[in-house]
Amino acid sequence: MTGPAPAVAAMRVAVRRALGDLGPGATVLVACSGGADSLALAAALAWEARAGGPWRAGAVVVDHGLHPASRDVADAAAATCRTLGLDPVRVVRVDVGTAGGPEAAARTARYAALDAVADDLDADAVLLGHTLDDQAETVLLALARGSGERALAGMRPVRGRLRRPLLALRRADTEAACAAQGLVPWHDPGNGRDPATTGLPAGAVAREDLPLRSRVRSEVLPVLEEVLGPGVAQALARTADALADATDAVDSAAAEVLAAAVRDAPAGERAGDVVLDVGPLAEAPPAVRRRALHDAAVRAGCPPGGLARVQVLAVEALVTAWRGQGPVHLPGGRVASRACGRLYLGLPFAAADEDG
Amino acid sequence: MTGPAPAVAAMRVAVRRALGDLGPGATVLVACSGGADSLALAAALAWEARAGGPWRAGAVVVDHGLHPASRDVADAAAATCRTLGLDPVRVVRVDVGTAGGPEAAARTARYAALDAVADDLDADAVLLGHTLDDQAETVLLALARGSGERALAGMRPVRGRLRRPLLALRRADTEAACAAQGLVPWHDPGNGRDPATTGLPAGAVAREDLPLRSRVRSEVLPVLEEVLGPGVAQALARTADALADATDAVDSAAAEVLAAAVRDAPAGERAGDVVLDVGPLAEAPPAVRRRALHDAAVRAGCPPGGLARVQVLAVEALVTAWRGQGPVHLPGGRVASRACGRLYLGLPFAAADEDG
Repeated sequence: MTGPAPAVAAMRVAVRRALGDLGPGATVLVACSGGADSLALAAALAWEARAGGPWRAGAVVVDHGLHPASRDVADAAAATCRTLGLDPVRVVRVDVGTAGGPEAAARTARYAALDAVADDLDADAVLLGHTLDDQAETVLLALARGSGERALAGMRPVRGRLRRPLLALRRADTEAACAAQGLVPWHDPGNGRDPATTGLPAGAVAREDLPLRSRVRSEVLPVLEEVLGPGVAQALARTADALADATDAVDSAAAEVLAAAVRDAPAGERAGDVVLDVGPLAEAPPAVRRRALHDAAVRAGCPPGGLARVQVLAVEALVTAWRGQGPVHLPGGRVASRACGRLYLGLPFAAADEDG
Repeated sequence: MTGPAPAVAAMRVAVRRALGDLGPGATVLVACSGGADSLALAAALAWEARAGGPWRAGAVVVDHGLHPASRDVADAAAATCRTLGLDPVRVVRVDVGTAGGPEAAARTARYAALDAVADDLDADAVLLGHTLDDQAETVLLALARGSGERALAGMRPVRGRLRRPLLALRRADTEAACAAQGLVPWHDPGNGRDPATTGLPAGAVAREDLPLRSRVRSEVLPVLEEVLGPGVAQALARTADALADATDAVDSAAAEVLAAAVRDAPAGERAGDVVLDVGPLAEAPPAVRRRALHDAAVRAGCPPGGLARVQVLAVEALVTAWRGQGPVHLPGGRVASRACGRLYLGLPFAAADEDG
């Protein structure tokens, strides 16, 4: 008796490692689009569950309804998941909005649907099929947009309930694993790997109409590999790992600085306002100080993700370049202002004596 | 009377800002290759010195001797610097070795020569003509090599005596500034911008023989701009800034952890050995811990820049995955070992009781 093909074995090892902390009776769902990545992942999860993994293993298929074949592709993916032995298997049809562009809107709808099904089935983990190639593309996109070190750190292997067991494996491995198991993945007509991430109608698509990620995949990465040699995707993924560590360290230092700076609000201040001593903030390294101020603003009621860098820098100037400037207006109707060596973040209030 | 061309004015403002901290009598040298970047920089420095900047402003031209026209190019650049009013102007001819490849060897020889002339002339600052485009190329090269967040942070505006006033300006601006002032920059035959960074013989050069940086410039960046839109170079430079802040924060936290962990060597230990309590190291975020261990190893005598990531990870395992493993061998003949809850870094010693 021969063992499984190397790619199949690699998928299974990756799933086993990613779920090692889950005890008996845990529920694990795989998000399956019908593409090679998530199909190979679904097969590996089903195998591991059968082979003794003490979990209930199911699948969720999100139908984005973005192309004519969408419903058929979703139903076929669900049928394959059932054949693999996954149970329960849910198909969720979502309405994709337009906010942030087609890719972002599809992503938002997809994660919301996964979250709802996971809640409904009381799932402990939801597995996503992102590979090292996806990670490399994410890093390149973040880089090209100048999105900062947090976006450059790419997708994390674990984020809340979401887990990405395949981040160290190649897209080609998932295709090989499908082929070795007789699984036929669905190929997106628009050169995107995954119908969920491209959302394109079937048929020919003009090159310049391809979503950015698809063009990074089909045009940028090949040029990088040709010029810089093979291993570029791995190098990009390694960069993401190093940056994830660096941003974790900045976050941890920022939490300490914030804890040292937080003061009780004086009598008369409203609950929810954040009052900070400028001293510990002034002494912190800039990256730490900016993260601490960002987190303080969110604690004071600014929407997470809503703060632009330029706004954080304006709040920082209240600490590091104080010359009596007025309050800084922030998203969510919050303001930041300085008085008597303290920083106030919260809803606007009437007046405050400002120190010199 | 009309003012200077915008590009010329931008160069001058950049130089003025970069030298604002230097007092009367300071000596400033510009490293001039004859290329557009450093020629525009030399002209701006000469202007600012004439216009009241209280410095002695000179130039250094490094002749790498790497192509037949090398000596003529260097002499012409020096003559232009003298015409601009810079004084003293020195031409230094260097022997470029081979260590690390032609680009790295030329860089090593160039910085050593600049350092020697700066010492000789007692210079306070040496100006380098790197632009935003150079920064973008540096980031892409580091990224493609997976060099980690420290290399991704790119070139710093100030590093010791070296200053890079043009990091926020474009290469095209330096070309425009040269044109507006009737300065004719030397163009490298190998498509490299600067003879010093390419080191190619004159004449046709096969595409695949171009140095990596030239190919990034001529092939990778144009594809990135075409696919992702203009602004890619700026985005890459912005990324470098953000990463510089993040790595500064990690360095600063690592210095604190190291200070908290350092213990006096017990009697009988040799001077130069570093003894660390594992407690503070175990509690630090991974990026901070690794930097602290890296710095401790350098303090114990490992050559700076000589530690591979895998070696730092092996030392880290003595802290975070202790199972009685033996000493870790490090560059410079140093070792790291653990005994009784302490980490020893230094020259090998005979024996140590290891804790369980």
